[in-house]
Amino acid sequence: MKALHLLEINQPLSYESNLIPIPKPGEALVALHAAALNHRDVYITKGQYAGIKTPVILGSDGAGDHRGQAVVICPSLNWGKHGLHQGDDFQIVGMPGNGTFAGFVAVPKANLHPKPEHLRWEEAAALPLAGLTAWRVLFSRCQLKRGEKVLITGIGGGVALLAMQFALAVGAEVWVTSGTDEKLDQARALGASGSANYRTEGWDKSLKQSAGGFNVIIDSAGGDGFSALPGLCLPGARIGIYGGSAGKITHLSPQILFWKQISLLGSTMGSNAEFRKMLQFVAQHQIHPVIDRVFPLEQGNEALAHLERGDQFGKVVLKIQ
Amino acid sequence: MKALHLLEINQPLSYESNLIPIPKPGEALVALHAAALNHRDVYITKGQYAGIKTPVILGSDGAGDHRGQAVVICPSLNWGKHGLHQGDDFQIVGMPGNGTFAGFVAVPKANLHPKPEHLRWEEAAALPLAGLTAWRVLFSRCQLKRGEKVLITGIGGGVALLAMQFALAVGAEVWVTSGTDEKLDQARALGASGSANYRTEGWDKSLKQSAGGFNVIIDSAGGDGFSALPGLCLPGARIGIYGGSAGKITHLSPQILFWKQISLLGSTMGSNAEFRKMLQFVAQHQIHPVIDRVFPLEQGNEALAHLERGDQFGKVVLKIQ
Repeated sequence: MKALHLLEINQPLSYESNLIPIPKPGEALVALHAAALNHRDVYITKGQYAGIKTPVILGSDGAGDHRGQAVVICPSLNWGKHGLHQGDDFQIVGMPGNGTFAGFVAVPKANLHPKPEHLRWEEAAALPLAGLTAWRVLFSRCQLKRGEKVLITGIGGGVALLAMQFALAVGAEVWVTSGTDEKLDQARALGASGSANYRTEGWDKSLKQSAGGFNVIIDSAGGDGFSALPGLCLPGARIGIYGGSAGKITHLSPQILFWKQISLLGSTMGSNAEFRKMLQFVAQHQIHPVIDRVFPLEQGNEALAHLERGDQFGKVVLKIQ
Repeated sequence: MKALHLLEINQPLSYESNLIPIPKPGEALVALHAAALNHRDVYITKGQYAGIKTPVILGSDGAGDHRGQAVVICPSLNWGKHGLHQGDDFQIVGMPGNGTFAGFVAVPKANLHPKPEHLRWEEAAALPLAGLTAWRVLFSRCQLKRGEKVLITGIGGGVALLAMQFALAVGAEVWVTSGTDEKLDQARALGASGSANYRTEGWDKSLKQSAGGFNVIIDSAGGDGFSALPGLCLPGARIGIYGGSAGKITHLSPQILFWKQISLLGSTMGSNAEFRKMLQFVAQHQIHPVIDRVFPLEQGNEALAHLERGDQFGKVVLKIQ
């Protein structure tokens, strides 16, 4: 089979032949039709990730065939027995084990789930990591309910977009932010009630005025800008944090947190059980992940560069075979 | 009756005669035997509080007689219908309405609760605001359970001490921090398993080593020191925030929050319903609030100055009549 190999960090992925993996006991072999990229893959190629080992085949998202059945792979391995958090043995498909940027991948049988029938292969591959992350932060952690108002920052990324789609499906009112007006237009076309460009001076005050405050905020940036979010909260609000691309949070007022009874809730990925619920929800509401662009597997480096530029709206997908 | 009046901010309280208040419909008159101080009273006298109006009789904590029944007053007024947060009409006894630094106070009948029989008047007066705040942050917000490990920062304050006593009563293992070794000794004598002086270089690393991490952390400081707390968390930990005496939180890593699935939970006071549960718990476990010092009512200014110095261990109480 052909696969994209990371031979060493800070080098392009190498597209070359490899042996088809032999499943260990309890594992299943999946013939992949599509995979999808995550920022995690970019961080790993740059060495910005804990415990990198090379050579490795990257890729956490994949969909394909297992013994004639169309399946989508849950990328969460060994979550463990606690609902509140992953255990010490937790891993994600595609590091340290080999991942989905390949013709075949061997994963635990328990991680195979029937592909939702309404999804094309590229859409099914776009769903797993982003969908699971969005599901857990939105519902398991922030307990978003019908009729609530939710703000999703940095719209355009895979998790942010699926969080928006899930929130709309559950009957919440969704507002979005981005640094790019075009992405805000696209999000409103998909159902967002309103938006703010965080590069505009005083964006938070005008957003507060137009939206009136939020019950839930979903953020993956952190950084200096985070301290504006509690001001946008309604009393009893929950802020879900699933990333920190802008670095450390500064100038966070404890007074506003305790007076408004705000909850800041860190969230990573999710369990196989949450993955199952997420798939049911996606099927029930006929949700289609937004795809920005599809590359053939052999153009994996171009796909990674495209993701890293950050101007995408939706998932970047690799078509296989 | 005699009462301590705040005539204007940044002036000593004035101990002078006033008319006995006439209860409005739905209110009850309490003949007070003891009151207790809170940092809130200090902040108000210095003008560091929102919506100050003068003249006013300060004081949120009180215990006394109502028609021959021994009662303790819940200081939480108009909490509202939501469990998650107080409503817009929420107030605390002792600002803007008159409070307990007086011979008599008129409060809503619903806020009167039978005094736990095992408590002396001074102890009963030491309980309300601190006990309610500790109860809500520890149990309603952080969901502390038997067998968990909890760190309480800044031990010596009224809320911190009651949080420690409640946590011990529920069967949790309690560790404490302070900037004063003597307070750490006193806390260990009351049942704390271990302690750290946060003025010692590397205190957090040695604490992590000896305690092995915490399920729950209760903090009222915030400030620069807060960023050490997530590092002390076990996966799935909850950090309850009920104050911010050290100002804004800086250098908070989103990565550690999401990877450990940490929850930061702001908490203020609590409802009348939580107050009732707290009183039942205190009676069941025969908990006695720690009293640092009792002043006669007429020495209210000395009592406030004593609280402000911050070297107390337990509540500062005013004896009335």
